[in-house]
Amino acid sequence: MKLPVGFRYAATFAGIRKIAKDDLALIVSDVPAAAAAVFTTNRVVAAPVEISRKHLRATHGSVRAILVNAGNANCATRTGTTVALSTVRAAAKTIGAKPEQILPASTGVIGVELDGNLILHALPALAEKLDASQFDEVAAAILTTDTRPKTAFAAAGRARIAGMTKGSGMIHPRMATTLCFVMTDAVVSPAALRIALKNATERSFNRISVDGDTSTNDMIAVLANGASQVNPGAKAFESALTTVLESLARQIAADGEGARKLITIDIHGASSDRAAERIARAIANSPLVKTAIAGSDPNWGRILSSAGTAGVDFDPRHIDIHLQGTAVCRRGLAAEFDERALKEKLDQPECSIRFKIRGSGRGRTRFWTCDFTEDYIRINASYRT
Amino acid sequence: MKLPVGFRYAATFAGIRKIAKDDLALIVSDVPAAAAAVFTTNRVVAAPVEISRKHLRATHGSVRAILVNAGNANCATRTGTTVALSTVRAAAKTIGAKPEQILPASTGVIGVELDGNLILHALPALAEKLDASQFDEVAAAILTTDTRPKTAFAAAGRARIAGMTKGSGMIHPRMATTLCFVMTDAVVSPAALRIALKNATERSFNRISVDGDTSTNDMIAVLANGASQVNPGAKAFESALTTVLESLARQIAADGEGARKLITIDIHGASSDRAAERIARAIANSPLVKTAIAGSDPNWGRILSSAGTAGVDFDPRHIDIHLQGTAVCRRGLAAEFDERALKEKLDQPECSIRFKIRGSGRGRTRFWTCDFTEDYIRINASYRT
Repeated sequence: MKLPVGFRYAATFAGIRKIAKDDLALIVSDVPAAAAAVFTTNRVVAAPVEISRKHLRATHGSVRAILVNAGNANCATRTGTTVALSTVRAAAKTIGAKPEQILPASTGVIGVELDGNLILHALPALAEKLDASQFDEVAAAILTTDTRPKTAFAAAGRARIAGMTKGSGMIHPRMATTLCFVMTDAVVSPAALRIALKNATERSFNRISVDGDTSTNDMIAVLANGASQVNPGAKAFESALTTVLESLARQIAADGEGARKLITIDIHGASSDRAAERIARAIANSPLVKTAIAGSDPNWGRILSSAGTAGVDFDPRHIDIHLQGTAVCRRGLAAEFDERALKEKLDQPECSIRFKIRGSGRGRTRFWTCDFTEDYIRINASYRT
Repeated sequence: MKLPVGFRYAATFAGIRKIAKDDLALIVSDVPAAAAAVFTTNRVVAAPVEISRKHLRATHGSVRAILVNAGNANCATRTGTTVALSTVRAAAKTIGAKPEQILPASTGVIGVELDGNLILHALPALAEKLDASQFDEVAAAILTTDTRPKTAFAAAGRARIAGMTKGSGMIHPRMATTLCFVMTDAVVSPAALRIALKNATERSFNRISVDGDTSTNDMIAVLANGASQVNPGAKAFESALTTVLESLARQIAADGEGARKLITIDIHGASSDRAAERIARAIANSPLVKTAIAGSDPNWGRILSSAGTAGVDFDPRHIDIHLQGTAVCRRGLAAEFDERALKEKLDQPECSIRFKIRGSGRGRTRFWTCDFTEDYIRINASYRT
């Protein structure tokens, strides 16, 4: 897939991570790009989130670059705002832009001071590296506990969209999860971009969960530089953007900390889409459901029980549940199935849960999560130290 | 501690569990006891919960016995109501009571038919065993994945209160968690008992969390047979009942599936007790906080971040956090502390988290949870099969 034109990328190791792996990256649009972003809903927000939000307001959604580091969240720190502002100012000078045209982003440990000098020293070499070919290098530099990079591409007419994201822990569905950057050379106004991003996020990043925790640093930013001179139209653009975000969101769920399986949950027959979403969320956040899937155990009672805590009214006698296409529960009761055959099907890397309420309800949703293994604990019991 | 007079207990192995361990128990009051109970808030409820609720209404809170089995939840089964009713009827006949004076209760796997004949066959021998001395045998018979029995005792004047409970998974704070039976020989009316139970539950079982899941079978039942002829007064009785329930709730959190540590969370300075509770709940349900404690990692950033998702307004710059009495965060920033010394303190079996909002807020709460270890996953990946 071809990349959108008019963007350059660079990544380097600035010394922020404990290990020698790229931890600083720059994404530059040759011309000011229309920009929109969604941010974390956490009450505790990192300095770069506050500044990015302010910059988008100040420029009415016109952005030249994203400056991002991994290894330190620059959150709950004394020098957070100072460091974010000084590095953004230096980056702006380096590429010949105004500071307000730069969006800063950070990911990593919370509560540890980020040494701004590391970034200031690395910036000149980083700018030297800027090249249209360095997309994958940036996608690798923003990762933390991820086991693989996450990118996705789509076309909207002759315009291109390319996205990258990171994240495998602190993944919660009620917000724009983790860091995600999307570049496009389509012609889109900032206002149209905001609407498309909001709708696409609702059907992708707001439909995944790894562990129910919500980070302090999350953002999805979309830059549209118009370099293709193609305006694909609002509908076509939103559809292509949704394709990219849905692919990225699925990749996050599949790469959840310690996860071995991607779980797709489909809810049908609820009284509304909103009710379907609440049921899906309750199932996706149940550690008991997620450990059962890890053990390839067709324990549908836990799925029914977790749905019962969603705060949605339904009659258990009207519930059908399918696992990997096999009926395990009919009208709220055990269905007959070949346990050994189903256990084998559940050993596959993708697992589907279908939860249907019989009757006339038309509310439905699709939701993604992952299984819950010993490795999640292992990774998180010693993350900081 | 002496047991309340006028109660007899019995436990036996009826063949419901896969292993030969007592799985059926009877608690009998010699005379009709004033009774009150609280039940699960899950939308999916087991047959014994529905019947117990109905019986309490029918008798206006007058109960002779509790018939309880472990190994099968009798939930989401074709024969659920039939089995619960027929076994209750047989138990009533055996002890010379009306069926409405018996509360049935079940715990175990969901969605598997419970063979009522196993209970009917075991009942005569069970009734033969009934004795005031068999309290501990019943407390052992109701356990499932628990690693130890959970009992608690208190006095209200010369009247006695004795409680038992079970549970270490599917433990969620927004309800009466798991099975819990409390016997007292105090003189209390059913109406007074309901109020005392509601208040005591709010400060005990509604303040614990293991995994955020909510069972379909939970109930706390209190039987007051008046045999001591002592009416301790509403206040003294409620206070003693709270002591018993708080001890039992703490024992559940400490014995959470796979848990090695009991975590006590204290919130101070919130705008209201309700706001404090929401913050405590968010911290207690965060897998990232719980895995950090498992690894003795003083990762206070995760505590701050999880509090930020509680939906409660606070300024991160006003937050102080103590771990094991050591200040780790002051005014939302890292405090200086001896990391090695604190890690050693965190290796202890009890861990305290203190989260304080500076200012004039007087809302506070205390909440209990446990750490999150690989063993939780191990236990739950293969529970059913």
